[in-house]
Amino acid sequence: MPEAATAPATRATIGDSEFDRDTALTRRAPGVYDIDLSAGWTIISAVNGGYLLAVLGRALADALPHADPFTISAHYLTASQPGPAVVRTDVVRTGRTLSTGQASLFQYDDEGREVERIRVLASYGDLDTLPDDVRTTARPPAIPPMEHCFGPQDGPAPVDGSSAIADRLILKLDPSTLGWALGQPSGKGEMRAWFGLADGREPDPLSLLLAVDALPPTAFEIGLKGWVPTVELTVHVRCRPAPGPLRVSITTRNLAGGFLEEDAEVWDSADRLVAQSRQLARVRLG
Amino acid sequence: MPEAATAPATRATIGDSEFDRDTALTRRAPGVYDIDLSAGWTIISAVNGGYLLAVLGRALADALPHADPFTISAHYLTASQPGPAVVRTDVVRTGRTLSTGQASLFQYDDEGREVERIRVLASYGDLDTLPDDVRTTARPPAIPPMEHCFGPQDGPAPVDGSSAIADRLILKLDPSTLGWALGQPSGKGEMRAWFGLADGREPDPLSLLLAVDALPPTAFEIGLKGWVPTVELTVHVRCRPAPGPLRVSITTRNLAGGFLEEDAEVWDSADRLVAQSRQLARVRLG
Repeated sequence: MPEAATAPATRATIGDSEFDRDTALTRRAPGVYDIDLSAGWTIISAVNGGYLLAVLGRALADALPHADPFTISAHYLTASQPGPAVVRTDVVRTGRTLSTGQASLFQYDDEGREVERIRVLASYGDLDTLPDDVRTTARPPAIPPMEHCFGPQDGPAPVDGSSAIADRLILKLDPSTLGWALGQPSGKGEMRAWFGLADGREPDPLSLLLAVDALPPTAFEIGLKGWVPTVELTVHVRCRPAPGPLRVSITTRNLAGGFLEEDAEVWDSADRLVAQSRQLARVRLG
Repeated sequence: MPEAATAPATRATIGDSEFDRDTALTRRAPGVYDIDLSAGWTIISAVNGGYLLAVLGRALADALPHADPFTISAHYLTASQPGPAVVRTDVVRTGRTLSTGQASLFQYDDEGREVERIRVLASYGDLDTLPDDVRTTARPPAIPPMEHCFGPQDGPAPVDGSSAIADRLILKLDPSTLGWALGQPSGKGEMRAWFGLADGREPDPLSLLLAVDALPPTAFEIGLKGWVPTVELTVHVRCRPAPGPLRVSITTRNLAGGFLEEDAEVWDSADRLVAQSRQLARVRLG
């Protein structure tokens, strides 16, 4: 895979990158963290749900005795905006190998009152202590090599309006899930892409929370237009990702009653299934 | 399907059945519900996680302005026991079509102090208001007719110890996922069964929360023995189930690092995919 097509000459590092800067929180008091939500991770004008989950995930990593999200569920209550926010965390239980915590992200209304945007429940552990016994029967997605896949930089912008997140990511979509961008959606609820961060930062457990929600909606390939807001998103982080690009494969099989599910798998360069997620999202039909 | 093999001559009804009696709560105060957890829903000596989720689900249905769980996530913190418990609910947000709530189930230690067993975050709606537009591409599981499937009543008890829950359910397992009961596990992470309640009560959204966690663990078919405790379980309820038996199909594809996921699909008699769930569970390896 040609390095020059995928990362800048000077790579950002875990801890010193756009993603780390934009998910960094300031601890104001135990369990209280301030952040200015970046405008750099918006899709059209909506702050990306995976970026928001990563913000909450970072707060919980600080608040809990274990550093890695193992399973994290988020309910998206009201739409977040770029700008000031506060995250409040609660420790639910601490154990030897797992700890559980809860976190809420609030923003401020015109009177300065806190309005809850997202609530999260999560259990954390230490991925590095997991035994090396891997019996995964799932197989990596069939996606062409990265040089045969395409991102927004490779053609005219397919979606109206500004999507700042496109500048943060290296997203190379499988051509077989790109029909929507050419006015010819396949009708199948599938989306596949190579995923990396534009500044070259390698993946880590927190950036996996972004990766599962960073692709275009499967709804586009089904032939639906318009916003597909996430109601709830649950991510299982199963392994610390190896350095290198990720492959993200998303599937929708149950579009019904004005809702759909998106099941995402994230595979790392060592062919490990490092994360699995499912979200419930609303669709505008008709 | 022969009725006599599946339900008693006098069927219990939704609202008046073992399941309703054993998940009924007494509201002590707004947001505070008492219950005596039944010993009738244990697997070996552990209270079944789906039964517990249904208890919490019923409390939230009372506490929230919307009656049906749409997406519900539970983190299991400490092992529940039959006996007294209290559920405390919080309303997170109420909306026109969706409301979000949180609930915790506590039991009492030797000093009478509350110990949290499970915490849940959930969004509720009204399933009956969903549009009738169904574009599900998933297909019902390939499972033989019920009369060619087998339950505990059909042979020697395959698992040592008492499993009271077996008397509450009509569970007829697909013979191709029954090898474990005969000492010949297939090695595949699959479990499929017809599911009903022994007293004939028809399914409803709350009993779906039980159904997704009521089958033997896929770990048994993989060839693992021992307990497979649930760390977290998220259920999407997508449709009010039609009367009649359910088909439950569970798949595990990522057994690794001492954890596995179980993905469950629940199909009703009208061939609707009424619920989807994923749980993260711990396995004892080696």
